[in-house]
Amino acid sequence: MAEKPTIRNKTTIATSRLFRIESLDIEFSNGQLRNYERLARSGSGGAVLIVPMLDAETVLLIREYSAGVHRYELGLPKGKTDAGESFLEAANRELKEEVGFGARSLYHLSSFSIAPSYLEHMTEIVIAQDLYAEKLEGDEPEELEVIPWKLSNINELLATGECTEARSIAALFMAVEYFKAL
Amino acid sequence: MAEKPTIRNKTTIATSRLFRIESLDIEFSNGQLRNYERLARSGSGGAVLIVPMLDAETVLLIREYSAGVHRYELGLPKGKTDAGESFLEAANRELKEEVGFGARSLYHLSSFSIAPSYLEHMTEIVIAQDLYAEKLEGDEPEELEVIPWKLSNINELLATGECTEARSIAALFMAVEYFKAL
Repeated sequence: MAEKPTIRNKTTIATSRLFRIESLDIEFSNGQLRNYERLARSGSGGAVLIVPMLDAETVLLIREYSAGVHRYELGLPKGKTDAGESFLEAANRELKEEVGFGARSLYHLSSFSIAPSYLEHMTEIVIAQDLYAEKLEGDEPEELEVIPWKLSNINELLATGECTEARSIAALFMAVEYFKAL
Repeated sequence: MAEKPTIRNKTTIATSRLFRIESLDIEFSNGQLRNYERLARSGSGGAVLIVPMLDAETVLLIREYSAGVHRYELGLPKGKTDAGESFLEAANRELKEEVGFGARSLYHLSSFSIAPSYLEHMTEIVIAQDLYAEKLEGDEPEELEVIPWKLSNINELLATGECTEARSIAALFMAVEYFKAL
């Protein structure tokens, strides 16, 4: 395995409310130079995706409008970590806002990169169990539809064509593996 | 399920070599208005991720420097669709450039969104089989390390901590399901 490349220069080339674009001059261990652009993390930076288990077999999905692809997506609840909040706290808050449940048990399943070649962002994957009803008001523009789904039926979920997000799909398969190994 | 929201206004607010940031004013069916930012697709726009099968049990992974997270990632080969190229052609070209194989059989497994709330981008997932040695020169700054891995050992791969990309993880699990159902 080659030695890790070195960042020779790093500049912010554009900034908006949500995004910051960085230009990176990278030198590889063989002397090759390349310029890369990446989307850098904003201030607090963290994101969480939650696998909420209603019972041992049933995961709670939400149907939510996704502006990036301009359609409704069926997937796992998710959101950003607020300043001063741990990712487990963020997971529980998002669960209360989007799904209407709190969790007595939160387990850190994994950390995902999203598009590691051009996004700095990582997402923490959290399994939420021992749920209890609690609704927090979030900033959602409309009530989210909550859909219970059998974890053993992921293939049927994928066949709907409504669940396309790689993070949700990977987290669901990893949750199956996690419960299998218990 | 609510009626799909309407895009009332769409503006490009920043552009760089790789990225274009759009601002969207969205009206929900309940009358709520929200402003969203998203990363819009660049010109050609497409991306592919390839599951190259050396034989019925063995997938070929690559170890590649990923500027977004500034480290080496172990995962599936991937790349962008060039202008005038179908995504299957792009998959075969990337396979030749990054892994040193062409494929006689290409199967479209799925389409993934990456972060549907703020990225317009989709990635086409392609299983490549009946491989033959053929190397094309790509624009890689260094030779990529190719690592054969048993498809039945995904959990061991995840345990390395080097394979974090949600798209690679989701595609590997879906490939297992695909071959199981054959």
